[in-house]
Amino acid sequence: MKTVNLAEKLAQFDSHWDPHVVADYNGNDVMVVKFQGEFPFHDHPDTDDFFLVLEGEMTMDLDGAHHTVKAGELFIVPKGVTHRPRAEHECKVLLIEPKGVPNTGDPETAAAKPHI
Amino acid sequence: MKTVNLAEKLAQFDSHWDPHVVADYNGNDVMVVKFQGEFPFHDHPDTDDFFLVLEGEMTMDLDGAHHTVKAGELFIVPKGVTHRPRAEHECKVLLIEPKGVPNTGDPETAAAKPHI
Repeated sequence: MKTVNLAEKLAQFDSHWDPHVVADYNGNDVMVVKFQGEFPFHDHPDTDDFFLVLEGEMTMDLDGAHHTVKAGELFIVPKGVTHRPRAEHECKVLLIEPKGVPNTGDPETAAAKPHI
Repeated sequence: MKTVNLAEKLAQFDSHWDPHVVADYNGNDVMVVKFQGEFPFHDHPDTDDFFLVLEGEMTMDLDGAHHTVKAGELFIVPKGVTHRPRAEHECKVLLIEPKGVPNTGDPETAAAKPHI
């Protein structure tokens, strides 16, 4: 058990779209990630997707809608809903997903999630 | 689906130790809460307890240890671990627990959790 400083964790890597696991909550990976540019549209058929913006601003694109999410704001994508996060400038995000969920929704193209 | 501004939600109530539900994530209540003073020592036998400090500073007292948790820091209490959050000055927290978990660990004394 320890206090986790999110800014310190985010300072340990520069890559975008590369979630790093900082804690476990009931079998969920609690991650920090940096967004810049566009991620592919995808969905997670079996889980909601939790995004809390820590710094900067992102847009969540959905089918026919988009939502701006700024620092101090959260957005939860329900399971099965196709979505695409994007950010013009670097945006720092707290992300929560059950362990083992591929970040692209596709196991074959999903990146590994390092623990820091 | 909508963006949830945590500061706007926190501005809707003044009470302490009174979690308000702002979103659902896979059957978990995502809540905002204001801490000031001391909560009773308690545990949750079946779930971890997720605390992310949004503003201010709190202390998590455990059996024989205590941890300071400041804005931008998270602390996860594993299930079954006796703990007591306290805060000398008002502290604003994002709290995640499975739906139906009594905040005191004791169903008889648990407060209802309003949705805002």
